[in-house]
Amino acid sequence: MSHGEHPAVDDADRTGVWLVGARGNVATMSIVGARAIAQGATDTTGMVTERDTVSNLELPPVEGFVFGGHDIEPESLVAQAERQRDRNGVPDADTLEAVRDDLAAIDERIEVGTAVNCGAAVSEDSEQLAEDLSIRDVVDQIRDDYETFRDSHDLERLVVVNVASTEPELAESDRYDTRDALERAIDEDDRDLPASVLYAYAAISSGHPFVNFTPSTANTLGGVRELAAETEVPHMGRDAKTGETLVKSALAPMFAGRNLRVMSWEGHNILGNKDGLVLEDEANAAGKLASKGDVLDSILPDIGHNRVRIDYTPSLADWKTAWDYIHFEGFLETEMKMQFTWEGSDSALAAPLVLDLVRLISHADEHGDGGLQPQLASFFKAPLGVDEHDFSRQLDRLYDYAEEHR
Amino acid sequence: MSHGEHPAVDDADRTGVWLVGARGNVATMSIVGARAIAQGATDTTGMVTERDTVSNLELPPVEGFVFGGHDIEPESLVAQAERQRDRNGVPDADTLEAVRDDLAAIDERIEVGTAVNCGAAVSEDSEQLAEDLSIRDVVDQIRDDYETFRDSHDLERLVVVNVASTEPELAESDRYDTRDALERAIDEDDRDLPASVLYAYAAISSGHPFVNFTPSTANTLGGVRELAAETEVPHMGRDAKTGETLVKSALAPMFAGRNLRVMSWEGHNILGNKDGLVLEDEANAAGKLASKGDVLDSILPDIGHNRVRIDYTPSLADWKTAWDYIHFEGFLETEMKMQFTWEGSDSALAAPLVLDLVRLISHADEHGDGGLQPQLASFFKAPLGVDEHDFSRQLDRLYDYAEEHR
Amino acid sequence: MSHGEHPAVDDADRTGVWLVGARGNVATMSIVGARAIAQGATDTTGMVTERDTVSNLELPPVEGFVFGGHDIEPESLVAQAERQRDRNGVPDADTLEAVRDDLAAIDERIEVGTAVNCGAAVSEDSEQLAEDLSIRDVVDQIRDDYETFRDSHDLERLVVVNVASTEPELAESDRYDTRDALERAIDEDDRDLPASVLYAYAAISSGHPFVNFTPSTANTLGGVRELAAETEVPHMGRDAKTGETLVKSALAPMFAGRNLRVMSWEGHNILGNKDGLVLEDEANAAGKLASKGDVLDSILPDIGHNRVRIDYTPSLADWKTAWDYIHFEGFLETEMKMQFTWEGSDSALAAPLVLDLVRLISHADEHGDGGLQPQLASFFKAPLGVDEHDFSRQLDRLYDYAEEHR
Amino acid sequence: MSHGEHPAVDDADRTGVWLVGARGNVATMSIVGARAIAQGATDTTGMVTERDTVSNLELPPVEGFVFGGHDIEPESLVAQAERQRDRNGVPDADTLEAVRDDLAAIDERIEVGTAVNCGAAVSEDSEQLAEDLSIRDVVDQIRDDYETFRDSHDLERLVVVNVASTEPELAESDRYDTRDALERAIDEDDRDLPASVLYAYAAISSGHPFVNFTPSTANTLGGVRELAAETEVPHMGRDAKTGETLVKSALAPMFAGRNLRVMSWEGHNILGNKDGLVLEDEANAAGKLASKGDVLDSILPDIGHNRVRIDYTPSLADWKTAWDYIHFEGFLETEMKMQFTWEGSDSALAAPLVLDLVRLISHADEHGDGGLQPQLASFFKAPLGVDEHDFSRQLDRLYDYAEEHR
Ligand SMILES: NC(=O)c1ccc[n+]([C@@H]2O[C@H](COP(=O)([O-])OP(=O)(O)OC[C@H]3O[C@@H](n4cnc5c(N)ncnc54)[C@H](O)[C@@H]3O)[C@@H](O)[C@H]2O)c1
Ligand SMILES: NC(=O)c1ccc[n+]([C@@H]2O[C@H](COP(=O)([O-])OP(=O)(O)OC[C@H]3O[C@@H](n4cnc5c(N)ncnc54)[C@H](O)[C@@H]3O)[C@@H](O)[C@H]2O)c1
Ligand SMILES: NC(=O)c1ccc[n+]([C@@H]2O[C@H](COP(=O)([O-])OP(=O)(O)OC[C@H]3O[C@@H](n4cnc5c(N)ncnc54)[C@H](O)[C@@H]3O)[C@@H](O)[C@H]2O)c1
Ligand SMILES: NC(=O)c1ccc[n+]([C@@H]2O[C@H](COP(=O)([O-])OP(=O)(O)OC[C@H]3O[C@@H](n4cnc5c(N)ncnc54)[C@H](O)[C@@H]3O)[C@@H](O)[C@H]2O)c1
Ligand code: NA
Ligand code: NA
Repeated sequence: MSHGEHPAVDDADRTGVWLVGARGNVATMSIVGARAIAQGATDTTGMVTERDTVSNLELPPVEGFVFGGHDIEPESLVAQAERQRDRNGVPDADTLEAVRDDLAAIDERIEVGTAVNCGAAVSEDSEQLAEDLSIRDVVDQIRDDYETFRDSHDLERLVVVNVASTEPELAESDRYDTRDALERAIDEDDRDLPASVLYAYAAISSGHPFVNFTPSTANTLGGVRELAAETEVPHMGRDAKTGETLVKSALAPMFAGRNLRVMSWEGHNILGNKDGLVLEDEANAAGKLASKGDVLDSILPDIGHNRVRIDYTPSLADWKTAWDYIHFEGFLETEMKMQFTWEGSDSALAAPLVLDLVRLISHADEHGDGGLQPQLASFFKAPLGVDEHDFSRQLDRLYDYAEEHR
Repeated sequence: MSHGEHPAVDDADRTGVWLVGARGNVATMSIVGARAIAQGATDTTGMVTERDTVSNLELPPVEGFVFGGHDIEPESLVAQAERQRDRNGVPDADTLEAVRDDLAAIDERIEVGTAVNCGAAVSEDSEQLAEDLSIRDVVDQIRDDYETFRDSHDLERLVVVNVASTEPELAESDRYDTRDALERAIDEDDRDLPASVLYAYAAISSGHPFVNFTPSTANTLGGVRELAAETEVPHMGRDAKTGETLVKSALAPMFAGRNLRVMSWEGHNILGNKDGLVLEDEANAAGKLASKGDVLDSILPDIGHNRVRIDYTPSLADWKTAWDYIHFEGFLETEMKMQFTWEGSDSALAAPLVLDLVRLISHADEHGDGGLQPQLASFFKAPLGVDEHDFSRQLDRLYDYAEEHR
Repeated sequence: MSHGEHPAVDDADRTGVWLVGARGNVATMSIVGARAIAQGATDTTGMVTERDTVSNLELPPVEGFVFGGHDIEPESLVAQAERQRDRNGVPDADTLEAVRDDLAAIDERIEVGTAVNCGAAVSEDSEQLAEDLSIRDVVDQIRDDYETFRDSHDLERLVVVNVASTEPELAESDRYDTRDALERAIDEDDRDLPASVLYAYAAISSGHPFVNFTPSTANTLGGVRELAAETEVPHMGRDAKTGETLVKSALAPMFAGRNLRVMSWEGHNILGNKDGLVLEDEANAAGKLASKGDVLDSILPDIGHNRVRIDYTPSLADWKTAWDYIHFEGFLETEMKMQFTWEGSDSALAAPLVLDLVRLISHADEHGDGGLQPQLASFFKAPLGVDEHDFSRQLDRLYDYAEEHR
Repeated sequence: MSHGEHPAVDDADRTGVWLVGARGNVATMSIVGARAIAQGATDTTGMVTERDTVSNLELPPVEGFVFGGHDIEPESLVAQAERQRDRNGVPDADTLEAVRDDLAAIDERIEVGTAVNCGAAVSEDSEQLAEDLSIRDVVDQIRDDYETFRDSHDLERLVVVNVASTEPELAESDRYDTRDALERAIDEDDRDLPASVLYAYAAISSGHPFVNFTPSTANTLGGVRELAAETEVPHMGRDAKTGETLVKSALAPMFAGRNLRVMSWEGHNILGNKDGLVLEDEANAAGKLASKGDVLDSILPDIGHNRVRIDYTPSLADWKTAWDYIHFEGFLETEMKMQFTWEGSDSALAAPLVLDLVRLISHADEHGDGGLQPQLASFFKAPLGVDEHDFSRQLDRLYDYAEEHR
């Protein structure tokens, strides 16, 4: 048994991390970051689990993460990372050199995935599982990929994280509201089920904790949630909160708490990476806009106007800029304004959260906490099973969890 | 016994509100607002005590506030309000008409105050108590003003709120660290004591709850705090949190919570009212800058660079604009940026909080809670006796208080 | 013969001003402004013709403008102005009072117009000329309205200005490229011709100078231009440059002049007036976006990405806010950024230009300069017959004209 | 005779470029850029002389620039460039490698300069000419350095450019208003003369064209100007216009041209390089603030309030961010606002202009145009001898010059 890039890590400290969308920006940056930490080439700035209170938890070390995954994009991880370096300046040249060999090794463990119902913007020109495979066969193949990886690396735990492109929304999703209905659909080769659901179902039905970093359907489907609850497999989602929406969830409570009436909150996002290109497609954007919009509607139930735009601006590459304009009314009908701009490297914001989520969901799994994980709400734009959108209060739930599990 | 502008209010619902700096912007807007609410000419947007949870408390009604105060500025309240209307558009013409008579009546109850050690920027061209009065006589005069007002309006409770101009910082304030030392200084005619301390001492020693809305020394002095603790008079301060600092206290926890390293946070405020003119004077600005700066240093102990500027820009009148530039580092040493601008009418932001604070400190007084009032921390830039600067958590203390006193 | 609101103005100084869209925001503010100037209730800030050099021209006085117009909206001018005052604060209460009677008198002179091919967003719920009138009859009716007004007010000159809502773009407009083709279409009752063309044709064929303040087709049509050239009637357009595009035309030359490569220029406009509502309709927006986009493409032929968005944000009323993000490359491939926000009252920016244009096109008419008026290019987003989009150079043409006609 | 790094360049195409402050940011980036162009490692984006019209002039090629200079900082050019790369990302790693050997060779040609009257912020810890040398001896030494360089590289023309740190303003500078007065002062060992004047005097009295890229006194002194006029040596300055002030000079004419009344223009600059550190010193900042302020006062003579701040914010390194807030009044007393932020790499903006200025002043010298060079006004915040501050019109002068010399 060989430990590949983890010579110094104890077996007990090794965690399998299976990334669906393993050659995407977020995945690449997560892998680069984890390996750079392991190599001592960077620090853990940006990781929530390295902050006070949370860092008191006994969490699996990032150094022990063993990566594998699915993708439908053939270009190698190394090539992806090089493009990121050239276009965004992140990772920098030195860091990339430090992890180049690790990336090459990990790239060997990326399997071809399914692109069923991912929309043309995603699946065009991709390499994917044969489209004429039955849905059941696709599920079996995915499960097989998980198990083969786990066996060959001798892993006790495998966490599956969906970081694939955003899919179009699934219409009438309540037809799959129960485990039964979902499993029947799979058996009857229902061609409406999207890839994210298959990845999630395959993971949870095999007992692997699952995290949905994207707005796609995946584990939000009633049938998947029922399955996870019954089998006590921890899972959480959806749509990681990394930029404009994060700021909204920190700022909107201020307006609410001061009883200031928000008349309009207009948000305009521009970005230039592939995520931006996919979101140019209206079908793919729908879910994203919904999860982004919810935060304000929930914190500010009386908001007058709430619009989010996402525009593709190629020259920005992975740098996402948001401009938000907030028009509010205070005492004596006084109209006032707040504006902000946020300029972040999207994947550099996302990557540490992927690592955090793997560590925290492993912790839940280790402690037998199955089903949804409300203590992880602060990581998501639309936290499953949680109504609280105030970022500070969401974080308090995580701190409380950390206190309890000290 | 005549109720003047409060014909319909029960005696039990009447609260005396004594404003030090009663003809200033904040005071004028507070009075205009309270009377406009009483006249049904405006609503309570901007008042924290009208929000869920807090609104469950049994609080004295704004309609029953009976205003009086000190000032060193002879121009009438009505004239002040007209200037506000013309220069800022707040209050609007209709609202001002609705309360004009009330303002005129209240103006009759404004007494001449002391301007000792307020700095030249404040006391120049003012009307004030004779400068050769002994400090003890000044204190007695102030106390007398409080009592005369209270008697003639037959008030059960009188809350004193300091909304006067910011004073220069008091040097070596620890010489007045005990009640004894302070009272000795008053008796020995110590000419270093500033006006705010005299107003605060006069209030608390007469049993009147006291709120310090400004950065001035007042009730922050050790001797005053000891007195209030011993005599169980509720008091709180200092420096109301209404604009840029409010936003900071909502946003900075987000950077902390995500373990993002703030390298620089540069804040630039421009405003055109008299407060801005006074703050052009470096001596008067010192306290303000200190209380503004503390918030970030406390929430982000590792912050690299933290500067606040306040500039006087006459054309803005009471509109304060802040530009904040936040340079932070995330994962993989990625440098990112957030900027915001905040454009608010300073007094319209402050006024509802004055009303809230009167109501809440009356509640504490009614329930026998003396000394500092940590549940009011969210209202202040430098909340006395409270280390927590995270706005959301400060608010949670108020909500907890409201739950307990339901 | 009665001079109504112009008792003190000489006959020679009276100019007829016919506004198509006479009850809209721009028209209302133009009339309010002109009458307020006449009443001494405001000054001429914002009027280009009151600036040095241009003010040396002998121009008809604003005090002598006699207003009339067409609209399809029945609500009176006074009501429009009151709404503007309440929602936008412009005009202020005093100014409105000063001109209220003038507005009421002018409102009597507004005739019902045609709404043919203006799009549903515009013509819904409107009052308009019978839709079954033949196109020729519509033209005759419009001409009749012009002449009746001119006669009854005994005016030597009548300038027609189109300030009506933006129409959808006219498809295959080159079929009307000649005067012949256009007149044949009118005679053959071609139902594709839009209202703006009919107003323009009616004006120019009657010898009235014509200004197209909007992006609509009107006098941009080949046939109308040929007619104006042949009959030597001065006309100009299109789409007044008042906000974001004005800034672009001042800033873009800076990037060009310094040889800085603009990779992306993203512009996002939000506004809340009826113009904004109409522009929510994609058909109506097309022309606007085209004329806005052209400026950059012309000044920065190598621009990488150039997008303009216009969103309707009701709470802003007539206040238009633009956020522009400019991503550019300098020396040594250094990527840099400029951002700006512009917050203006749309009609208050437009109104003085309407008055300027009436004065300047009257001047051209007086001096026998027919056809297009390139010296007026600085007023327009898409100046007819002028390739220069650099604002400073466009202005220089006006100054040169003023020098020549001194 | 060896041409060092210029094997392929004709003698006729070689130009000596002597940089005072040769190891500073601007100098380093200019040299890196020139050599990178010569090596084909970058293009000429950002160079005005490579734009249409101007590029029609017969200008000396950048490839032929032979660099030398003075500095008081011992750390090598290569080390400076490495720091720039690490802290700012400009130049990038590849470009630096391409020119590393050239930098090392050029560094050998940098002589120790004088730091007389440069202020403590500049001269502390520096290596400089002995402070007890007489002023005349210093001048002679500088002249000697120029000639030795010129001889040893066999250069026909040597252009001297001052890119040294900003000096404190020279008090009562009119005492040196004539050539006579200045030369007498030098002879009488007047210890008030600052270094920049000595460099400028040495250059011009030896017949070398001189450019003052900084706000320092140098060639702005009456005596130096008289000398240059009499001896017909071309020179120009002062203070290159690269960032916020450039934008002002493009935008302010828009407000003027539209007759909009600017009530306040507040500019706040933050930067983190050594220039920023030196400008923290109030004495050194005075000149800079003056030249920055003049632009607006000149274009907008009625401006109400005009303030510029420069703050040192270390984490920004060479990235300068400016926030400008423009409060203006339009028609009907409507108050409106424009804000912009500008984020540029200061030296990357400056460097191409250094190259442009060398080329253009060489052209003037070649054509016998001595004294001030008004066609270069667009390059400077305070162009000597030119009142026009409108950037577009300043550029037109350059284009006119280019047309004339075609
Ligand atoms: N800050 C952030 O970057 C952020 C925040 C929240 C959510 N997200 C979400 O994370 C996801 C990934 O973002 P990204 O920027 O890495 O996008 P990306 O386009 O760079 O990467 C997505 C990857 O998924 C792959 N993929 C697509 N469909 C697949 C399928 N059916 N099976 C397997 N692989 C598939 C693609 O080939 C690609 O390699 C998106 O859904 C995005 O909305 C990102
Ligand atoms: N948003 C806000 O407006 C805000 C927020 C926090 C704190 N504050 C603080 O509130 C205070 C008032 O602000 P403002 O905008 O109303 O200022 P202001 O200058 O309009 O009013 C201050 C008033 O206090 C009076 N005064 C000064 N010294 C006095 C004295 N010794 N005794 C009696 N009266 C005196 C002045 O004559 C004036 O009428 C300032 O200290 C300010 O820093 C205001
Ligand atoms: N700053 C500016 O406000 C600005 C700048 C440039 C261009 N414009 C253009 O000016 C025009 C007017 O803008 P606005 O803000 O006043 O819009 P508005 O909607 O307030 O007014 C338009 C008026 O035109 C009337 N109208 C519509 N179709 C008509 C028709 N066929 N005949 C007669 N009347 C008709 C409407 O009833 C309405 O009263 C728009 O095309 C706008 O794009 C405005
Ligand atoms: N965009 C820009 O960067 C820009 C724009 C306009 C003007 N400037 C001006 O250009 C000058 C240089 O800016 P920088 O960013 O390169 O500054 P810098 O501090 O990086 O470099 C200045 C150099 O001058 C040297 N120096 C100082 N005094 C000297 C003396 N007496 N003799 C010889 N050398 C001396 C210093 O040692 C240093 O190496 C400053 O005056 C600055 O204000 C810069
Ligand atoms: Na909280
Ligand atoms: Na020009």
